[in-house]
Amino acid sequence: MKKVLVTGAAGFIGSSQVDFLLNKGFAVVGIDNLSTGNLKNLDSARNNPNFIFVQLDLVLDSIPNEVLDGVDAVYHFSANADIRFGVQNPTRDFEQNTLCTQRLLETMRMNNVNKIVFSSTGSVYGEQQVFPTREDAPFPIQTSLYAASKVACESLIQAYSETFGMQVFIFRFVSILGPRYSHGHVIDFYRQLTTNKDFLEVLGDGNQTKSYLHVNDCLTGIETVVNNPFGRINIVNLGTNEATTVRDSIRWISERMRLNPKISYGTESQGWIGDNRKILLDTTRILKLGWSPKYTIKQAILETIDYLENQAD
Amino acid sequence: MKKVLVTGAAGFIGSSQVDFLLNKGFAVVGIDNLSTGNLKNLDSARNNPNFIFVQLDLVLDSIPNEVLDGVDAVYHFSANADIRFGVQNPTRDFEQNTLCTQRLLETMRMNNVNKIVFSSTGSVYGEQQVFPTREDAPFPIQTSLYAASKVACESLIQAYSETFGMQVFIFRFVSILGPRYSHGHVIDFYRQLTTNKDFLEVLGDGNQTKSYLHVNDCLTGIETVVNNPFGRINIVNLGTNEATTVRDSIRWISERMRLNPKISYGTESQGWIGDNRKILLDTTRILKLGWSPKYTIKQAILETIDYLENQAD
Repeated sequence: MKKVLVTGAAGFIGSSQVDFLLNKGFAVVGIDNLSTGNLKNLDSARNNPNFIFVQLDLVLDSIPNEVLDGVDAVYHFSANADIRFGVQNPTRDFEQNTLCTQRLLETMRMNNVNKIVFSSTGSVYGEQQVFPTREDAPFPIQTSLYAASKVACESLIQAYSETFGMQVFIFRFVSILGPRYSHGHVIDFYRQLTTNKDFLEVLGDGNQTKSYLHVNDCLTGIETVVNNPFGRINIVNLGTNEATTVRDSIRWISERMRLNPKISYGTESQGWIGDNRKILLDTTRILKLGWSPKYTIKQAILETIDYLENQAD
Repeated sequence: MKKVLVTGAAGFIGSSQVDFLLNKGFAVVGIDNLSTGNLKNLDSARNNPNFIFVQLDLVLDSIPNEVLDGVDAVYHFSANADIRFGVQNPTRDFEQNTLCTQRLLETMRMNNVNKIVFSSTGSVYGEQQVFPTREDAPFPIQTSLYAASKVACESLIQAYSETFGMQVFIFRFVSILGPRYSHGHVIDFYRQLTTNKDFLEVLGDGNQTKSYLHVNDCLTGIETVVNNPFGRINIVNLGTNEATTVRDSIRWISERMRLNPKISYGTESQGWIGDNRKILLDTTRILKLGWSPKYTIKQAILETIDYLENQAD
């Protein structure tokens, strides 16, 4: 039985990856410092004899040798995932993303763990002019501390691959939606509307255009590339070939919640400093492997609303 | 009198930048931890009443407030500058380049210092296919821990600019030569040939093709862009429009030293893991500002040999 390690295991995508791998017959070690993760996400996994949970902080603590023993691959999802708060806390992205990843890579190197799957972001393309954006888009200029921290991780992972022969999988995600979803515009709007069903305040002018992917499609996408690597270094956009505006998203959310709120838009074309006005990734590279998303953006948003409403019951 | 701060002030380029700025009438604070820097490089500066030297380590120590008071710009040259030893010491580039730069940016932010000049490297383009390589070349894949650490710095600096409004100048250098030069292939070959004038061992097959720039041209290039910024974020290749092979360089060095050594080449197309087989930067962006290099690569190599021979006397 192959043993893998998942970091950020109690988070939205991390815990979903844990369940996915357990279902596929892997032995899984989950690591999380529980700063933003939620143990409830691991309820099912913790009933599985092939799962072990270890609470530790990848920056402050070292991973015990017995945890690493026999690990074939690390799925590294531990991260500060919110772009928006770089202004208030400019060191957090660096420490929780870049520094954390550097420590993890060193630990992997010293323990001969030679495969890493990494959750990067479409935000690394900065304010691109070319849409859909390919993996070899022009050398971008970073517009947020979050994306900068992820570029730093990507670069480190690539250099570790080149220097020490690791096989690496870097996925540039669009925003992920679905069960266990815990931050982003859908939950912000949902919370506002459950507090006051008649009024919604939107950051930015609502014309920001983004792409979203359902977590199930995200996990099958990762599996597809890991099982069909292009080579030692694999950099893959993971999203849908469609994008939607914040205004469309609000319409779908309001309809699903059977509400008709008054909406107050901002005047800025971006929601906050560092927000990308548009994200639409070219997914040709992964589509060629036979993968395709099963959910449209609208379906992913509606299912996320359903999940949030069920949670509230 | 404008006050600027130079990090890595006792190093090759840093100390040259100190002298250049003092000559232009700036008040200069030089910082160095003297781990690889040499106080001898600051002999002239330390006789200038407009210069102050502060020995401290940017990762371990904080910069005293009185040092930062009134600083208009930081010239950040402190770095681990040797690509070659990433394999033996994989954390050094991260700590001395990335972590150091993150700490410096935070210090600048907290002290309202809003301008940074940063020495990056043409190595950030990785194994490019396009030569000469433009600043907006395809999103590169990093091939050394050194270059990865510099990409991380660049990304952080860009994000700080976007988030906090800093004006930033990122220079992607080719290898710099000239007086005070202290590491790289010219000094390696010079040392070998002063130890044994009849034999030279070369890492790689000698067909690696690189570009070099004389430090004087480097300093006038920096000055040109700082005085004529393109905007808030300035990313500029700094090199010559020519490249030379290691074999040519050896011929010039041998002729200058009046030697005719037996040369042993390796079989690899790169000198070491992470070595770029070819570096040739497109310098159109800076040439358009009216700057041009005064030295050819051959002249820069010969003057470096003359400097090394004078040092030995």
